[in-house]
Amino acid sequence: MRGLMMDYPLTITHILDRARRLFRDKPVLTRTASGMHRYTYGDLYRRVCRLANALTALGVCDGERVGSFAWNTYRHLELYLGIPSSGRVLHTLNIRLFPEQIGFIVNHAEDALIFVDDSLVPALEALAPQLKCVRGYVVMGDGPLPKTSLAPLYRYEDLLAAASEDYDLPRLDENNAAGMCYTSGTTGNPKGVAYSHRALTLQSLAQCSADAFGLCESDVVMSVVPMFQANAWGLPYTATLVGATQIYPGAQPTPQDICELVQEHKISVTAGVPTVLLGMLGALEQKSYDLSSLRCVPCGGSAVPESLLARFDQLGIRVVQAWGMTETSPLATLSKPRSSMVSWSAEQQRLVRAKQGMSMPFVEMRIVGDDGKELPQDGKSVGELQVRGPWIVAEYYNDPRSAAAFQDGWFKTGDIATIDPDGYLQITDRAKDVIKSGGEWISSVELENAIIGHPQVLEAAVIGLPHERWQERPLACVVPRPGQQVSRAEILKFLADKVAKWWLPEDVVFVESIPKTSVGKIAKRDLREQFKDYHWPSEKA
Amino acid sequence: MRGLMMDYPLTITHILDRARRLFRDKPVLTRTASGMHRYTYGDLYRRVCRLANALTALGVCDGERVGSFAWNTYRHLELYLGIPSSGRVLHTLNIRLFPEQIGFIVNHAEDALIFVDDSLVPALEALAPQLKCVRGYVVMGDGPLPKTSLAPLYRYEDLLAAASEDYDLPRLDENNAAGMCYTSGTTGNPKGVAYSHRALTLQSLAQCSADAFGLCESDVVMSVVPMFQANAWGLPYTATLVGATQIYPGAQPTPQDICELVQEHKISVTAGVPTVLLGMLGALEQKSYDLSSLRCVPCGGSAVPESLLARFDQLGIRVVQAWGMTETSPLATLSKPRSSMVSWSAEQQRLVRAKQGMSMPFVEMRIVGDDGKELPQDGKSVGELQVRGPWIVAEYYNDPRSAAAFQDGWFKTGDIATIDPDGYLQITDRAKDVIKSGGEWISSVELENAIIGHPQVLEAAVIGLPHERWQERPLACVVPRPGQQVSRAEILKFLADKVAKWWLPEDVVFVESIPKTSVGKIAKRDLREQFKDYHWPSEKA
Repeated sequence: MRGLMMDYPLTITHILDRARRLFRDKPVLTRTASGMHRYTYGDLYRRVCRLANALTALGVCDGERVGSFAWNTYRHLELYLGIPSSGRVLHTLNIRLFPEQIGFIVNHAEDALIFVDDSLVPALEALAPQLKCVRGYVVMGDGPLPKTSLAPLYRYEDLLAAASEDYDLPRLDENNAAGMCYTSGTTGNPKGVAYSHRALTLQSLAQCSADAFGLCESDVVMSVVPMFQANAWGLPYTATLVGATQIYPGAQPTPQDICELVQEHKISVTAGVPTVLLGMLGALEQKSYDLSSLRCVPCGGSAVPESLLARFDQLGIRVVQAWGMTETSPLATLSKPRSSMVSWSAEQQRLVRAKQGMSMPFVEMRIVGDDGKELPQDGKSVGELQVRGPWIVAEYYNDPRSAAAFQDGWFKTGDIATIDPDGYLQITDRAKDVIKSGGEWISSVELENAIIGHPQVLEAAVIGLPHERWQERPLACVVPRPGQQVSRAEILKFLADKVAKWWLPEDVVFVESIPKTSVGKIAKRDLREQFKDYHWPSEKA
Repeated sequence: MRGLMMDYPLTITHILDRARRLFRDKPVLTRTASGMHRYTYGDLYRRVCRLANALTALGVCDGERVGSFAWNTYRHLELYLGIPSSGRVLHTLNIRLFPEQIGFIVNHAEDALIFVDDSLVPALEALAPQLKCVRGYVVMGDGPLPKTSLAPLYRYEDLLAAASEDYDLPRLDENNAAGMCYTSGTTGNPKGVAYSHRALTLQSLAQCSADAFGLCESDVVMSVVPMFQANAWGLPYTATLVGATQIYPGAQPTPQDICELVQEHKISVTAGVPTVLLGMLGALEQKSYDLSSLRCVPCGGSAVPESLLARFDQLGIRVVQAWGMTETSPLATLSKPRSSMVSWSAEQQRLVRAKQGMSMPFVEMRIVGDDGKELPQDGKSVGELQVRGPWIVAEYYNDPRSAAAFQDGWFKTGDIATIDPDGYLQITDRAKDVIKSGGEWISSVELENAIIGHPQVLEAAVIGLPHERWQERPLACVVPRPGQQVSRAEILKFLADKVAKWWLPEDVVFVESIPKTSVGKIAKRDLREQFKDYHWPSEKA
């Protein structure tokens, strides 16, 4: 028997229209070179309508992909809302990918237009000769069009000025594509994920839950996560859904810029990768900022060390670890202590908060062994993490590699993890970075987090290298803080009461820097290559 | 272009399975004649599996309706979860309907079985001869089967004991029916609403939003709203989704019982109609209870007088007005002051909180005039409220009256209302109760709320009666508090600075009681009938 309820689609269009109806006077602010740009949701709505009409005038069809190559600004928010709401697909181009990767993804997605920040025109110009389907470039900025070889070239503000404000939002199918992002794998070409309206909308509604970010109308939300990475974790959509005040940090914000924006605008929610939060701590060492308005700071993208949580706790700021991937829209888990833990000490609670946490509503997780069988959720059994749910990828866009990425309707994340009896996920490694010593797993991620807790350490990476007796043993590569000294023995002593004895790195080497991927993750493959001729001290002896 | 995300259905089944995975040790408590019954979500899950197998053993097919005739207990929660999760449809029978109405709805829905509380067996027995499709009755209680003419008869606990605990949750279509409720209209037969899994699940997720109830894992939630009325406002599903501690008040809780449960179990969220909250205030006048654990008390079902909000404010308890109907699952709006109002006085904020509030995410509202055209949302234009959204009814079950209930895909609520520029709904009347004086609307609901604010008034109802000069004028029917006296002149003086002069009742009459419908709403039709030969003082003169 069918239910007899309205077939009302879950779409970005609804989010936009709701903002028009309820929040027209709420502000959206953007940091620009000439000060803060300020307008309202009402202004935003009218410009989005003009954008939709401009896209039609430029001949962009329903379902066609439109690229963005831009920082976090109100104009990028207009693209986030206007492109999907008018039935097109927003393809956010990660400006930090290698040029040949950007060329690949633009061609693979067949982007019809690319909207580009004026400051990024030179970077795009260098790629343009590779791009096969792009029919035009739209430059976003306040000044005149820059001198460039990009052609045909349009000025965003001119297109909007020429377009009508009258636009009837279409009724879209919630399963239509709203956005696309490509993964930034370290091997092979990037893989495309096509987000449906339903996926993004449901993720945003779930983010409003009190047990998630609890985003609400009275919040002041700053999207620091780049809008060219995994939908900026959905924050622009969620903030618009609830009518929060929105702050965009503009091009290349420094940690000082971020702290100043928080202080000046009494920002209550901002999200970022650990590097950004570490940067904020660094800025605080130089100068005092009042960050007391922050009530929730989601952090993810790579593991959040307990020491980072502790340092923010000292400031009275609650950092909440969240986990996800481009393939999971991205928010899949977040880690808050549950009610049974409220009587625990702050240290005990931080151990829980340093895990990746419980799955969001409607997201399911399981751990699967090498034999493809599900493992118990006992906090000990280690296997590959698999997820499913309404905002998890079902297949990669036009990519034969999809076949290998799924098992019985579950997405194989490539992360190695445990799930404890309370349902808290802990990721121990990327599958390809796993260290297996004497038949047992060693988590390079946990070792790295422990080493970073040492006060003289700036960065650390742990890789597994072949070992005659134990098959593999961990090597710690450590970057000391500028002007500081630390020894191998000190690191090992520091770790002694933090990890199992057999987890202790077989050796510690000091390096000037850790190689990174295009999106700032540790490039372990490069590191293993760098140390391929390394010999253990015991072997040298 | 289609999105490429998983086709993962939004179902009650997921809510149940999530509770099993994450919250197995959280408690569910029920007040019974012999003290508190206490078990865990883990126990609940195992019994739900047994129930699903028992339904199969009794030959209940996919999609068949199963009735419940029961109070708010853990067993009713098992029906709430087990019947929809196994693919059947839970039809909650409102025990307070008139017997012939209950007979009608059981036959109309073709209920295959009825699950009945042992204390309600006599009430059901009287109806049974009318029931045409019911193949059996399942008695829920701790004792042996009562002596009854109901047949065939099963004992709930025996069925569960005989059934296996092994049950694989099916993968259901989210658009399948999960539950049914019938409206309790004052005219004609009740109309059936068939809720889909999607509708109930989305409503629950939306209730978790910080701007809605913000329900979370650390909450202690008591469903006081009867589980036989509009899905108990969705609270049993929402509480299970987030893993909150749940308290069920059992059969016929008194206001004292409710206050004791709140105090004893530190309940943080409970919801009820204004009558229940007024009862709690009455209980507090007799005895002191510590109700400070309450953080959010949704109130709805009929208009919430500002005086009720004020009295709870004095206790430090936040009552939040919510509005909805059987046809809207039911939660459609709720009224919280927005961030621009935080600097307002408590009185000013209460004026906002006394409105029905802003629409939930994904619910749209509009006001339509007699000519079927949309009216401006200016807080002044009065017309019929129409709503649409994913948890709004699309048609009544097997009912030709559906045709008249919709306009262009919007549900016509039959409520007369305004919407202000901030998007706050204010319901002024049921369409059929509207008073039109000299071509202008007068809100009987607002007048009633104002009169109830008088300290000597227990109840009040306002109806429109024909008037020679003004077409209609309001007559106030007032029930004084027991042992108290109040005059017509005192009432009119009390209202003088609260309503427009031309709104003042043309006359005030004192009555012993106000006639009510089967669900406790004012029976205005009966009242108008009662006063059909009434003459205005001016006409008598």
